[in-house]
Amino acid sequence: METVTVNLGARSYPIFIGTGVLAELGQLLREQQFAGGRVAMVTDTGVGKIYREKVAETLASAGFDPWVIEIPAGEEHKNLAWLAFLYDKLVEGRIERRSPLIVLGGGVIGDMAGFAAATFQRGLPFVQVPTTLLAQVDASVGGKTAINHPAGKNLIGAFYQPRLVMIDVDTLKTLPRREFIAGVAEVIKYGVILSPDLFMLLEDQLAHLLRLDPHLLIAVVKTCCQLKALVVEEDETEGDYRAILNFGHTLGHAIENATEYKRFLHGEAVALGMAFAVQLSAKRGLCSAATSERVCRLLKKAGLPVEIPKGLKGEHLILGIETDKKISGGKVKFVCIEELGRTCFDHLSVKEIAGYL
Amino acid sequence: METVTVNLGARSYPIFIGTGVLAELGQLLREQQFAGGRVAMVTDTGVGKIYREKVAETLASAGFDPWVIEIPAGEEHKNLAWLAFLYDKLVEGRIERRSPLIVLGGGVIGDMAGFAAATFQRGLPFVQVPTTLLAQVDASVGGKTAINHPAGKNLIGAFYQPRLVMIDVDTLKTLPRREFIAGVAEVIKYGVILSPDLFMLLEDQLAHLLRLDPHLLIAVVKTCCQLKALVVEEDETEGDYRAILNFGHTLGHAIENATEYKRFLHGEAVALGMAFAVQLSAKRGLCSAATSERVCRLLKKAGLPVEIPKGLKGEHLILGIETDKKISGGKVKFVCIEELGRTCFDHLSVKEIAGYL
Repeated sequence: METVTVNLGARSYPIFIGTGVLAELGQLLREQQFAGGRVAMVTDTGVGKIYREKVAETLASAGFDPWVIEIPAGEEHKNLAWLAFLYDKLVEGRIERRSPLIVLGGGVIGDMAGFAAATFQRGLPFVQVPTTLLAQVDASVGGKTAINHPAGKNLIGAFYQPRLVMIDVDTLKTLPRREFIAGVAEVIKYGVILSPDLFMLLEDQLAHLLRLDPHLLIAVVKTCCQLKALVVEEDETEGDYRAILNFGHTLGHAIENATEYKRFLHGEAVALGMAFAVQLSAKRGLCSAATSERVCRLLKKAGLPVEIPKGLKGEHLILGIETDKKISGGKVKFVCIEELGRTCFDHLSVKEIAGYL
Repeated sequence: METVTVNLGARSYPIFIGTGVLAELGQLLREQQFAGGRVAMVTDTGVGKIYREKVAETLASAGFDPWVIEIPAGEEHKNLAWLAFLYDKLVEGRIERRSPLIVLGGGVIGDMAGFAAATFQRGLPFVQVPTTLLAQVDASVGGKTAINHPAGKNLIGAFYQPRLVMIDVDTLKTLPRREFIAGVAEVIKYGVILSPDLFMLLEDQLAHLLRLDPHLLIAVVKTCCQLKALVVEEDETEGDYRAILNFGHTLGHAIENATEYKRFLHGEAVALGMAFAVQLSAKRGLCSAATSERVCRLLKKAGLPVEIPKGLKGEHLILGIETDKKISGGKVKFVCIEELGRTCFDHLSVKEIAGYL
């Protein structure tokens, strides 16, 4: 089992990464100083169907008493109404202030259950078991929890660090192909903004990654967690620097919003946003056309979309950018690249961004 | 203007206390490094009627553009439905991530607006202007924000520190008498658990305090803020020690819950809870009967209730204690006193507590 430590002072925590480690979750929690007893386990209906028995079993055998809560799968349920349901279930299961809340699943359930953990009884000990590539490389580091609001994605949330993250890359075998590829978009993002080495590894070994080579998966997930940890350690609550992680996300979120979170998976929308961001960077003379093309080529090779469908280039997209959380004084802090591994912020008005659409 | 600093590292903040200082709020915010521009001002209908114009004026004259949001007054509105309304209004007013959220009012609106500030866009800069004695001596230190859940008071919330607190004791002149006296309960609490000096000052000068002597008010509010700050600085997120502040609150919350937050003001319920706690302490041989009586005498002298109405001693109270946030492993961490200024924790089952009712 590999370990990455996210160093945030009193809020530091370990990420354990391995294959087949899910069956050892209960034992691991005990080793990590969790007393047995009542524990909330939150999952979605899709992931729950596959893994809830297995996880409940490892927890029970280690002396925990799991109270399982299932939420319907899908971004459209990441809202205040289902959060209220989650609170009601935590009350019903007599979850106490020191009872751990374990979330098992992808980014959607992780964000929402994380927000519930952050706010129920003013904070329960939170344990993440991400089962999608996207959640493994993104949600497991940084403590961003949230729900959506009709006016914007993740508009309501909190920074709340988990006590522990356990990643079993074996769970990626049961992940729908399209979701796995969407996760690769976020992996590529780390290469583009932070690590030419990772980018080149992906250019080189993409086929192996897409075949779910376990050693490569562990190495890639670990690298992504380490890269993200470095950024988050520098700027936990997104004062400034951390915003580089929003690369591709300004437009990505707007696309998701304009299509009501139905047409594109998050990673696909981010791929579109990254392609747009590198092209904008090239057009503004910040990076070379060759670099921009190289990024788009890798995205395409992974099976990700890079061209915004014509029907979308309208006011819906612009409205989505306008309600972006990163907007300040009417300007968007747009993340551009100068070259692979080097980013810069460009403060652009919504109108200026729209001009590049 | 007096100042108390709450020392919490990167989350430290000042509390300014004075008379007639409300009119200087805008100026003070500018001096405290807030840029002008959009600012959310949240208040309740009662306080808003008296002060909203005045506060909007001082903000506007200092270069802010206030967006006023009003919530109906009363604890029964401190819930998820009104929180959702608040989020919608923040969206409607185009409140951005760096826009300060100022809350003007008592503990109810402060708790709820504070939770909205903690969670909207994952956290807005939060400014508190408490206008009740209770909020001035309690809510202004410690960063506890919350809303109620049908199953329990403050069951959903976050620890979120304000950037600045401004207390104008002049606002106590427009506070209903009953609410002022309820606030005195919390003042007495600090004397009982932390400061024999404060307790004796109250025994001595209660009449002056009840006449709203401004110098005494400033001194008392300042002392309470300092005392609470010492506790919170020691234990920000209620790992252990901070729980002493829950003195009188275990039963107090249960009483509020059993009477649906309608019959007693929070301070009145806490007064009942404190009287119960000192009597329990005396019966368990932890403090002398004389000390217990002395506390009850001061509470009564202030016009606060000390006897639980007969009709209430039933299963509703017990259920309220059972859903208390401080419960762990079936035991309540009950705050007792050994003498004035010295507390201890007694881990009691709900049944044991009920035995003293």
